[in-house]
Amino acid sequence: MTRLFNDPARFRDDMVDGFVAAYGRYVSRVPGASGVLRASGPVPGKVSVIVGGGSGHYPAFCGLVGPGFADGAVIGDIFTSPSAEQAYLVGKALDGGAGVLFSYGNYNGDVMNFGLAESRLRGEGIDCRTVVVTDDIASADTVEQRRGIAGDFCVFKAAGAAADRGASIAEVERIARKANDRTRTLGAAFAGCTFPGKSEPLFTVDPAKMELGLGIHGEPGVATTERLTATELADLLVERLLVERPVDADGRAGVILNGLGSTKYEELFVVWKAVSARLAAAGIDVISPEVGELVTSLDMAGCSLTLHWLDDELAELWDAPADTPAFRRGDVSGMAPRGVAPSRETQATAATSAAAPPTSSATPAVAAASVPVAEASVESRELARTVRSCLAAMLATVTEHEGHLGDIDAVAGDGDHGRGMLRGLRAATQAADDADGAGAGGTLRVAGDALADNGGGSSGVLWGAMLRAIGDTIGDTDVPDAATVVAALRKGADTIAELGGAKPGDKTLLDALVPFIDALGDEVTTGAGLAAAWRRAAEVAMTAAENTSQLRPNIGRARPLAEKSIGTPDPGAVSLALCATAVGAVLVEDCGGEL
Amino acid sequence: MTRLFNDPARFRDDMVDGFVAAYGRYVSRVPGASGVLRASGPVPGKVSVIVGGGSGHYPAFCGLVGPGFADGAVIGDIFTSPSAEQAYLVGKALDGGAGVLFSYGNYNGDVMNFGLAESRLRGEGIDCRTVVVTDDIASADTVEQRRGIAGDFCVFKAAGAAADRGASIAEVERIARKANDRTRTLGAAFAGCTFPGKSEPLFTVDPAKMELGLGIHGEPGVATTERLTATELADLLVERLLVERPVDADGRAGVILNGLGSTKYEELFVVWKAVSARLAAAGIDVISPEVGELVTSLDMAGCSLTLHWLDDELAELWDAPADTPAFRRGDVSGMAPRGVAPSRETQATAATSAAAPPTSSATPAVAAASVPVAEASVESRELARTVRSCLAAMLATVTEHEGHLGDIDAVAGDGDHGRGMLRGLRAATQAADDADGAGAGGTLRVAGDALADNGGGSSGVLWGAMLRAIGDTIGDTDVPDAATVVAALRKGADTIAELGGAKPGDKTLLDALVPFIDALGDEVTTGAGLAAAWRRAAEVAMTAAENTSQLRPNIGRARPLAEKSIGTPDPGAVSLALCATAVGAVLVEDCGGEL
Repeated sequence: MTRLFNDPARFRDDMVDGFVAAYGRYVSRVPGASGVLRASGPVPGKVSVIVGGGSGHYPAFCGLVGPGFADGAVIGDIFTSPSAEQAYLVGKALDGGAGVLFSYGNYNGDVMNFGLAESRLRGEGIDCRTVVVTDDIASADTVEQRRGIAGDFCVFKAAGAAADRGASIAEVERIARKANDRTRTLGAAFAGCTFPGKSEPLFTVDPAKMELGLGIHGEPGVATTERLTATELADLLVERLLVERPVDADGRAGVILNGLGSTKYEELFVVWKAVSARLAAAGIDVISPEVGELVTSLDMAGCSLTLHWLDDELAELWDAPADTPAFRRGDVSGMAPRGVAPSRETQATAATSAAAPPTSSATPAVAAASVPVAEASVESRELARTVRSCLAAMLATVTEHEGHLGDIDAVAGDGDHGRGMLRGLRAATQAADDADGAGAGGTLRVAGDALADNGGGSSGVLWGAMLRAIGDTIGDTDVPDAATVVAALRKGADTIAELGGAKPGDKTLLDALVPFIDALGDEVTTGAGLAAAWRRAAEVAMTAAENTSQLRPNIGRARPLAEKSIGTPDPGAVSLALCATAVGAVLVEDCGGEL
Repeated sequence: MTRLFNDPARFRDDMVDGFVAAYGRYVSRVPGASGVLRASGPVPGKVSVIVGGGSGHYPAFCGLVGPGFADGAVIGDIFTSPSAEQAYLVGKALDGGAGVLFSYGNYNGDVMNFGLAESRLRGEGIDCRTVVVTDDIASADTVEQRRGIAGDFCVFKAAGAAADRGASIAEVERIARKANDRTRTLGAAFAGCTFPGKSEPLFTVDPAKMELGLGIHGEPGVATTERLTATELADLLVERLLVERPVDADGRAGVILNGLGSTKYEELFVVWKAVSARLAAAGIDVISPEVGELVTSLDMAGCSLTLHWLDDELAELWDAPADTPAFRRGDVSGMAPRGVAPSRETQATAATSAAAPPTSSATPAVAAASVPVAEASVESRELARTVRSCLAAMLATVTEHEGHLGDIDAVAGDGDHGRGMLRGLRAATQAADDADGAGAGGTLRVAGDALADNGGGSSGVLWGAMLRAIGDTIGDTDVPDAATVVAALRKGADTIAELGGAKPGDKTLLDALVPFIDALGDEVTTGAGLAAAWRRAAEVAMTAAENTSQLRPNIGRARPLAEKSIGTPDPGAVSLALCATAVGAVLVEDCGGEL
């Protein structure tokens, strides 16, 4: 259980403040962004390796920033991808002119957000590349679909060490890709983890059982088995990992026995005794193993075993020195930030920061400020008031249903959907209110960007892109007719499908959105006013969202847990239908049948 | 909860095997003893710093062995002092000719066992000294009575760094003592920890409350308070620690925010944000702080804050490089065991060790073999059979009551009394059975030594010393009369009082033992046969043991929890009375009124 916090909604920001205050000799904050970089700053002419993802996994990701390892980390909320805006800002700040490698675990939210940031950095002439980590053999049969868990550590270390030796961006990318191709992990969980401010764990495991193939976001395992002794578990993990030994592996392996949070070191050593014996019996040459907590999952009980199959090149990088807040290896002379006293100024900053109001903290509201507000007609500015009312109504309904959205998300996901939407819509309404003088299109655009930057995860980035696409179509001059509104929504749905790579039937928000737009289009075509048409279409959306309970997820974090998901509706589809319903009520009130 | 184990009774041995298998590049096993030393071995002419205590606290103690830190660690069972024999063996193996410093937390069991080892090493001409750590301000008003918790880390590091710089034993002792004098810790616990094989935690905390002043052996805190926010807890810990700021402190402090096990890094950083702000506001210059798990307590939820007040000398030692399995700092060039591949032999050893039968493992049965068996008369050898029957009966009754003894020990202690007595008596009966041809006195001596070496904690060492003293008095020639038996028991009680520093009324096993001996003496004086007298005296002992529930503990681990202990009998007194009762039954059967 997570017990130490102040405001749960500010947990991530407080955590980053404290982390930088503790390890200012290693890292500093990326100015104006939710990320950290080495205290020594970016090195001109050197490739920068930037890792990241949600928080709750310490030492991953920010604890692994330092010489010989990552150059920087982008820090999302607990178990939630950082936004594209934040990844962009960190990438931009860390570019030393030789290119930037993003590396992170293969989760939809991260892929979308880092992907958007990569495009934007490339658009600015920065040679940005990406290697996603896919080490978890339990999560899919095809490697490309697998998620990244403790193997993150091996891939990041190889890339970081290579970059510090002066490798080019192409070389760093090649090495990271090879490291990922030769890294395999399998884990087991015994008990769930609890979010700050929550009293119930994200998932529970029958005390007599264990979940094989855990995720690091509280996803339950892919198979429930009887509890095993330490030796039986070691046998099982080694056996299944050896099946996936690469054909060209020469027998050398870096090995990690990773604790997830509350499975302690002594237990891991008991397991390691059997693991090392089994690996030795299989002729594996274990190089510099690490037994401890390297990629955690809050206070989850469980462990995972990672085999990082080495060749000469990877062996040298695995054993290369590293000096980060949470992990240090070998001779770091010349590279080590010595254990010197932080200056009085640093401490004073920490003190000031702690006392300062929330807005000065890790995630400044950069999105709204970065969006220029287009010139708008009087009519469009008037319509913007309705847009703001709609956003407020969406916020109200998500606030009301946050718990339910979290519950249904926790069945096969990480239970953060309600909180993410809440954070995103809070920021969106604030940004819309702040965009004084904007037209309807501009208001939707700033709201979308704020939602993407604060909502986190896949929902944030998808909703943000949708609102921006709708805003682009509606524009800031004319008041759109009903057909234009339908066209704008269709543009939003297309953007989501393209960005997320999903199609109807994959059990995503599209399964509520597309029926909604179709129904709205039909109603409008038959001459209904927008408000009345919207209300009826919202009913269709709600039914469609409920019917997603019959679907199997084909994409995203829920996919490995497809079977468990059946019987529960998709949280993204439900929140979309709730928002559509709330907007319908506003339209009836504001516009009646006028629009 | 501790979930990963094989045989709970072999948890410690499995853990040490796995630890050495994982970190063979740092440490190796002390041959024939339950301890580890640096892989590079003892350095001739250098002082050796040996730390230790029970296991369950990783990285303390074995994870802190390496250049710049400890030279070796003596490893006891979970939350249980290693035996004097093991401390002696490790000290002997690590002596490089310049002296040995023992350093460990101030707990009765450790003090007695390491103390006996120190005497024995000194007797062999090794300049062995001891500095106990007393950093926990919650555990007593007088510093000498305080227990050691996370401050262990600071004291060990100062001593280890000084020894590695070539300081003399007197210098290392002086520095360790100064480091301890300038180190203060206070902690809080939110939930208990669970022993391997147990399903219930050692103690529980009301979810709405927290225990201030936790111990690291599952001792509940000294005050129960409302749950606090992270900032409120930080304020409380800083405030109380600053009250104890040494008068000559110049404001520099090494600081540790330590996680106890399942309170995770992210939470600690949230607390650290407030801690660093408060320390800065108080003008404290925080040097190289560490936020993480350094001295744990299995999976206990909680954290502690340590202030290590530095002067120029201690500041240099605090920042000195170190390279151990669990903690690395600074430039370790030239001192670092590089991250090279463990040799195939090392792995083969691990494999063999894993497959080998239990007797080959960490704690060999050295005690029995090291005790020469005296020549014995036929009569004494006959009496030895009765002694063996008595030991078997004691083992049977402790086996039967193990759960109850653990429960009453957990009220104000660490709940290990039943298990410790069980392990000790198992080893004692085995050693007595193995001592073929020994007389009654010799059998008691080997049984006592085996009990001391395997029982762990204070009970093991006290019982062991008592049995040895009784054996010395009874000897191996004559069959003692009842008065001699009483005199032998009185000698045993005196030995316990001297070794443990306790007197009747302090709520220890003496409060059952002394009334028992007094009653036995009275009965015998009035002419009763030994068997009948013993049975009546055992009834007195049982009543006396039950009456200890009215006493306040004045010594040992239970002392800080004196109030909580009232209403519960002393587990040591209860087990003594149980054993006396069991022996009485044997005497009636074997000897009737004959003796």
